Amino acid sequence: MQELVEYSSLIERKLSEFNFPNTPENLYNPLTYFLKLGGKRLRPVLTLLASEMYGKPREASIHAALAIEVFHNFTLIHDDIMDQAPLRRNQETIQVKWNSNIAILSGDVLFVKAYQLLVRQEEKHIKELLEVFNRTAIEVCEGQQMDMDFEGRTNVSVDEYIEMIRLKTSVLLGCALELGALIADASVEDRSNLYQFGQNIGIAFQIQDDILDLYADPDKFGKQVGGDVIANKKTLLNLKALELSDAMSLEELTKLKNEADLNKKISHTRNVYDQLNVKAVCEEIMQHYYNEALLHLEKIDLLDSAKDNLKHLAGYLMTRTV
Amino acid sequence: MQELVEYSSLIERKLSEFNFPNTPENLYNPLTYFLKLGGKRLRPVLTLLASEMYGKPREASIHAALAIEVFHNFTLIHDDIMDQAPLRRNQETIQVKWNSNIAILSGDVLFVKAYQLLVRQEEKHIKELLEVFNRTAIEVCEGQQMDMDFEGRTNVSVDEYIEMIRLKTSVLLGCALELGALIADASVEDRSNLYQFGQNIGIAFQIQDDILDLYADPDKFGKQVGGDVIANKKTLLNLKALELSDAMSLEELTKLKNEADLNKKISHTRNVYDQLNVKAVCEEIMQHYYNEALLHLEKIDLLDSAKDNLKHLAGYLMTRTV
Repeated sequence: MQELVEYSSLIERKLSEFNFPNTPENLYNPLTYFLKLGGKRLRPVLTLLASEMYGKPREASIHAALAIEVFHNFTLIHDDIMDQAPLRRNQETIQVKWNSNIAILSGDVLFVKAYQLLVRQEEKHIKELLEVFNRTAIEVCEGQQMDMDFEGRTNVSVDEYIEMIRLKTSVLLGCALELGALIADASVEDRSNLYQFGQNIGIAFQIQDDILDLYADPDKFGKQVGGDVIANKKTLLNLKALELSDAMSLEELTKLKNEADLNKKISHTRNVYDQLNVKAVCEEIMQHYYNEALLHLEKIDLLDSAKDNLKHLAGYLMTRTV
Repeated sequence: MQELVEYSSLIERKLSEFNFPNTPENLYNPLTYFLKLGGKRLRPVLTLLASEMYGKPREASIHAALAIEVFHNFTLIHDDIMDQAPLRRNQETIQVKWNSNIAILSGDVLFVKAYQLLVRQEEKHIKELLEVFNRTAIEVCEGQQMDMDFEGRTNVSVDEYIEMIRLKTSVLLGCALELGALIADASVEDRSNLYQFGQNIGIAFQIQDDILDLYADPDKFGKQVGGDVIANKKTLLNLKALELSDAMSLEELTKLKNEADLNKKISHTRNVYDQLNVKAVCEEIMQHYYNEALLHLEKIDLLDSAKDNLKHLAGYLMTRTV
């Protein structure tokens, strides 16, 4: 994906050019640190690609693209506190390197920075940009709250789970694309189709994440295969398995939650899942959302050639092994 | 202050009409709870008074006024986490009644709500409203960070302290007024003077807070007189006392920080302050900022009668005993 590489380096460069004030150090140093941790920068690239589809130069939506990435990083900083995560991209999280108060407050400042970036777009677009962005920001918080609520529940349904990942991660991909289209003065229908494309790709991507966690090639995966199983995390695999279980496999899965031998825990859980055909069932659901995404891309009122970049990007995201 | 009462009931009513979604309960119930805790609603009243000065009906700036109040409450929710405060207006804080993760996240949502309100103002004002609001929001975070940094320092100067209270609390009063003036299409000079009026009143008000903490009439004060002394909090009284101290009083103040008998701690600290004439010195500084505020109010290009409400409000704030 040449475009992804090229566009994400542009984003990386622009992020590195942010000039935070020198003081208070404890407010701004964490932000400089966190934005340097890297990442795919997928979301802002979507914004740039969306406005470029309509013939706009990539600079036209750069502030909105950066706002999306900055907002995403704000959510990561606050999520890391809530999850008590020690590491982010193999580096210490802000609340470990500094403390959680500093993580709360520097996150808040980064959130304002997202709005400062949005306001730098052309004035005629600002109101609508903010309306889409605000709605999405609230949905992302709702998704995070659902995720936290799920931890304390035993009866989460597959539908609820998909609604949670839609809100927590997928709407932001839709929003990223819609902002780009909005800046390019695309029609309301096109904006909506691009949003739906992004949202559905996001759901498919998240389901793939769940599948890879247990079924990735350990040589390529780069982290512990089965991490979600070890942590007894609710994933689509796990919830589907519970849904499809008979009394016996339900009993086995319940017993495995407390299994101390982690290799055994992972392999036995996988055995139960395999008996229930869970992987194929989840892949089918993933494929459904991927197809939905492509359907919305097709509906967009542009030549196929203009859609190639997004189509390739979607295909690329779906064939990853990591 | 009839206007304050009347306008703050309008704000109270509008806040109670907020219709948060029903789910996730753990995200929205805390917000409904927190906004019902009450308060003077001083900041949004300033916004309404500012636009009314220019002949605008009070409804003209209602969304911006609510945005200011909602933002203020967002900062209180996050500050309560950072300060590990058990109570807010004599009721449990969100992190006590729920937990700190819920306080972080519901605070974040409330912050977005402030932006949603701002975007409901007339489109022609949105860009400028956001520019002033964003700058202020960042300054408030900077002030909170300075305040936290001060806790771990022994050498905070009076100037640094005043800069901290300017950022943490006073700029928001300036911003509240400027947004109202902006909506009324006031001149840039008037906007700036109103901002300065608010900022200086804010500093004076905060200094008064510090003085009242130790010198209020215990029968009227409604809370522990000397609370800041007990907590060894850095206040203007405390910093001025350290600045004016000779070696002997410095030693006594240092010793008193660890005094276990709290009544003795308060009365002896007050004795040292009285010897150093600290109260009068701080009142003089307060008066300086109050005079500065009135000077900026005078410069505003309107008939005196139009400024009466703000002048009365300022006077009223400066004569409080609680």
